[in-house]
Amino acid sequence: MSKESKIPNPTIKRLAIYSRPLEILLESGPPVISSKKLAGLCDVNPAQIRKDLAYFGEFGIRGVGYNVRDLLNAIKGILATDREWALCIVGMGHLGSSLAASENFKKRGYMVKAAFDSDARKVGKKLECGLTIQSASDILKTVRDLGIEIGLITTPPHEAQRVAHLLQEGGVGAILNFTATQIRTRKKCAIENADVSIKLENLIYHLEQLDKRV
Amino acid sequence: MSKESKIPNPTIKRLAIYSRPLEILLESGPPVISSKKLAGLCDVNPAQIRKDLAYFGEFGIRGVGYNVRDLLNAIKGILATDREWALCIVGMGHLGSSLAASENFKKRGYMVKAAFDSDARKVGKKLECGLTIQSASDILKTVRDLGIEIGLITTPPHEAQRVAHLLQEGGVGAILNFTATQIRTRKKCAIENADVSIKLENLIYHLEQLDKRV
Repeated sequence: MSKESKIPNPTIKRLAIYSRPLEILLESGPPVISSKKLAGLCDVNPAQIRKDLAYFGEFGIRGVGYNVRDLLNAIKGILATDREWALCIVGMGHLGSSLAASENFKKRGYMVKAAFDSDARKVGKKLECGLTIQSASDILKTVRDLGIEIGLITTPPHEAQRVAHLLQEGGVGAILNFTATQIRTRKKCAIENADVSIKLENLIYHLEQLDKRV
Repeated sequence: MSKESKIPNPTIKRLAIYSRPLEILLESGPPVISSKKLAGLCDVNPAQIRKDLAYFGEFGIRGVGYNVRDLLNAIKGILATDREWALCIVGMGHLGSSLAASENFKKRGYMVKAAFDSDARKVGKKLECGLTIQSASDILKTVRDLGIEIGLITTPPHEAQRVAHLLQEGGVGAILNFTATQIRTRKKCAIENADVSIKLENLIYHLEQLDKRV
């Protein structure tokens, strides 16, 4: 595994992107795909795909392409998406509830094992997915008891940092932060930000630039 | 504006991040903040903040810091978040519905003006926000009539590309894509991907790496 741990971050991000069309092809497409075709489906250039895939050995058959099943399995192995992961969600507003109900999550092995909220009126409420909303004061104990590995934070921004501390204290190793707060984590905890309004602001700047060019 | 259009992309992304703690400070904090303090709140280094802010003129008062209100207004001016934007959402599943109900959007001037779904059973249903779900076959006409500027796609992956075409045809200049499909757009349309499962896969890879180091 020493070679794998040297795979650069941007490659890792692209591997997840490559896996999406492969999943569709596995169900309904040809068993082999050329790097050019895969590149087209992923909107990256073929040289980039070949370079990225070279990090984990020789997959392509020159002049033919990649075996879809083998390539997808290899990518899933690298990304460790070939097993189930235990998630919890903190903040049961609209977004948190929609994530808890996600069929896409379940399909990909992201099992939502617990849902929390600090609002006493929500605690005890049963969700569509079968879980019962627990009090935010139970985070530490529940996360430990259930061995939760990944925490999703969908609270109001001012609660995010405190929640992140509790999750880490309970042993969570990765946090996906949907709030606009920049969360500080310890070295051992990985974090990704998924605040939609930040994405929108980036888009809007580009809209403005486009308008100016017209 | 010639200087502004040269602001590099990573700086633009960080400006949105800087604006978040400033919004909180504007309501309840001191009127002036040092770059060091702001850097701490945003989890970036102070030199980076000073460099980024220098792109749009001299804001800091040496030895004192930045005026919170002036700095926030300047950032909003650059990002063009100081006016309302017309949005539509295509795909009224859990995620689409939760975005349509977002108070955070409204507060930031992102006005959801239309909601679409291709499922005839959903069409005509009234949403919490007051909108009525329209048929996906109305996208082109409605987007044109209402002057929608930004489209959010929360459909199943296989519908995303076709929806993106319709949105662009109707005049949408920016798309936020929540599906796992890589959407190809024309040059004039900006796109950002916000697929949660891709973010999770990046996190999981890091979890694996952390495990190996223990």
